[in-house]
Amino acid sequence: MKTFTRYESVDEVLRWLDRQVSALPPETVAVSEACGRVLAETVQSPIDVPPFDRAAIDGYAVRGFETIGAGAYSPVMLKLHDTAVALQPGTAARVVAGAPLPDGADTIVPFPLAEEAGGFVNIAAAVAPGEHIVRRGKDIACGSPLLPEGRLLRAQDLALLAACGLDRIIVVRRPRIRLVTTGDDLAVPEQPRSAHQHFEAGSSMLKALVARDGGEVAAWMHVTDDAIGEALRTDEIDAVLIAGSSGEGWNDRAAEALETAGELAWHGIALEPGRSTGIGRIGSTLVFLLPGEPVASFCAYDLFAGRAIRRMGGRSTAWPYPARRVVLTKKISSELGSTDYCRVRLTPNGAEPVAVGGNTRLSALAAADGFLLVPEDCEGYPPGTEVTVYLYDSLDSEPNHVL
Amino acid sequence: MKTFTRYESVDEVLRWLDRQVSALPPETVAVSEACGRVLAETVQSPIDVPPFDRAAIDGYAVRGFETIGAGAYSPVMLKLHDTAVALQPGTAARVVAGAPLPDGADTIVPFPLAEEAGGFVNIAAAVAPGEHIVRRGKDIACGSPLLPEGRLLRAQDLALLAACGLDRIIVVRRPRIRLVTTGDDLAVPEQPRSAHQHFEAGSSMLKALVARDGGEVAAWMHVTDDAIGEALRTDEIDAVLIAGSSGEGWNDRAAEALETAGELAWHGIALEPGRSTGIGRIGSTLVFLLPGEPVASFCAYDLFAGRAIRRMGGRSTAWPYPARRVVLTKKISSELGSTDYCRVRLTPNGAEPVAVGGNTRLSALAAADGFLLVPEDCEGYPPGTEVTVYLYDSLDSEPNHVL
Repeated sequence: MKTFTRYESVDEVLRWLDRQVSALPPETVAVSEACGRVLAETVQSPIDVPPFDRAAIDGYAVRGFETIGAGAYSPVMLKLHDTAVALQPGTAARVVAGAPLPDGADTIVPFPLAEEAGGFVNIAAAVAPGEHIVRRGKDIACGSPLLPEGRLLRAQDLALLAACGLDRIIVVRRPRIRLVTTGDDLAVPEQPRSAHQHFEAGSSMLKALVARDGGEVAAWMHVTDDAIGEALRTDEIDAVLIAGSSGEGWNDRAAEALETAGELAWHGIALEPGRSTGIGRIGSTLVFLLPGEPVASFCAYDLFAGRAIRRMGGRSTAWPYPARRVVLTKKISSELGSTDYCRVRLTPNGAEPVAVGGNTRLSALAAADGFLLVPEDCEGYPPGTEVTVYLYDSLDSEPNHVL
Repeated sequence: MKTFTRYESVDEVLRWLDRQVSALPPETVAVSEACGRVLAETVQSPIDVPPFDRAAIDGYAVRGFETIGAGAYSPVMLKLHDTAVALQPGTAARVVAGAPLPDGADTIVPFPLAEEAGGFVNIAAAVAPGEHIVRRGKDIACGSPLLPEGRLLRAQDLALLAACGLDRIIVVRRPRIRLVTTGDDLAVPEQPRSAHQHFEAGSSMLKALVARDGGEVAAWMHVTDDAIGEALRTDEIDAVLIAGSSGEGWNDRAAEALETAGELAWHGIALEPGRSTGIGRIGSTLVFLLPGEPVASFCAYDLFAGRAIRRMGGRSTAWPYPARRVVLTKKISSELGSTDYCRVRLTPNGAEPVAVGGNTRLSALAAADGFLLVPEDCEGYPPGTEVTVYLYDSLDSEPNHVL
């Protein structure tokens, strides 16, 4: 049991946290599985792309000077070559877009301008040497850099890598997270609830948040309050998230367990909701004590644990939410001394608060389109203030369905 | 072999496509796996949340009127109850945040305002009845709607559902996609490349795009051009993507294979890059003929196939990219008659083109931060024009790493 005598400022804790965390070591993955991963080193192309002079269109490979003077009423007649190998003078060879230009040829006659007849090709227009040809290495020269270290790989980047013949690349290892939920008053999912219990609601949310931030939940367990110490194993784990048992109650043993196993660096943070958050480490493994209450847990995760997980995975520490400047249509009141995670709803003219301060109603969180942070030295904002709102839906081109 | 005599307008094809596609039937999934899925029906809560009047804080449950007059120098002394069951007059019981309020109690004394001594609790301040209590159903009333049909589920929504005791929910089925790559001139990943071959580069990209849009690639195969017909199986498949063999070359058999197996509704679309795109169906399964060239394939996927996949999965047809209004710092020239998928790079003052029209350089696509569409009746824009750019990175709070 513990009483918070002071609450640490969010900024102070973030500065400490950023000093603790750096990108994990690299690992090799298949390009086909690499979307959303972060390059651990700049990649160079081992080949030219295209790997040879190639036809840009479907048509007939020819020597350009042999088509001089060709017209619709005065076609040039070239002998048809069956195969697209070294082209003899006076001949034309079928080529498809992407195929190597046959030796001897220097241009392509688009096939709508040519007609085959009796082993010959009648060409109805002159084509200049070099036309409709993509030169070897024109897109990518062998040895040139393709994508830089730190790149969060997009779908189209995989095509670029594959086109260069790269099957495997070196990326930052994904953070491995142990997720521990605790609270003797919780019924875990798919188990019956006794009359005095709540349903455990944070684990599915936290797993989804970890995945969003590029981590993976390597282990999940629900333990009783007095078994937290046993759950604090850190073998092959980069961060432990303990949800619950972080507060001032008689059963709150998370801080004590962490102090026994390692170091409790912070406990009690001036964040609403989320005041009972704690952070520490066991060896090189970070440990986050998150409030058991799901809304407070969400805020504490997003402020601290998510940031660390993104950074471990080589990603930006920036919020994983689109930011939008909007005008408040109603005032926000916030208590001095705490960073207030204020949930807001977008309105036709701006944004209005749906939950401020210690409000931990899940229904209000679901009704929010996003949030803003009111700094600890600010008492809030009058209507008409322009603020930065972070939107929960990363794809913001169309609003999500709300009740 | 085929010659395109006209190219259909993108808008016309999109109108047709939207008429063909609706949300797939529902299926039941675990709440823990439901992030990013789309609710197929509005969900109501089967219980009150909280399910009982509960303590909002850690402290001592008391009868509020018994604390009247309490102060630091005149504490009220109540007998300590060992267990949190029906509270007798003149007693106080330890409670932790979240626990049910004992029968008979009507408020909580925060524990910093109370001190235990010799089986008694000295209470140093009066607390009003109802304080620090969360009433049963205060967050969510039994039977009230939680989240609406069509909701793209966020991580925090899973907490809301779990808190209501819901383990499984009904969501729109994920579209199942068959991905077929073709082209005799392609070396598939992890296979050696012969001198006249390119590396197959589209499949990893398309798999990642399908996943982004909420679909799953249920089957992937690479076939020779003359085996496309055999790959056009549609059992338990919602859409087939064929990459390659869609053009005007002698080996281009995708259109013919689709005409044999079903209906080729469109072939040849006024989109640059992506002119050789075709769309049709076999029974109720949509079939997309995508260009083999990866950049053109990317554009055609994003304009047509991705839109259909999102819609089948119950999502919005809107671009899955954040939109931003920016000023062009260089002019864009575009040919009349085609929608031009113009790739742009953000600059400190706006955006500038990196690839327009039929440019299919993968290195240029990788260098782009996003794109804009130049409509078919527009010849482009002068510098200074404000345009809507769609950004490739859905999380746009910090720019991605570029060379």
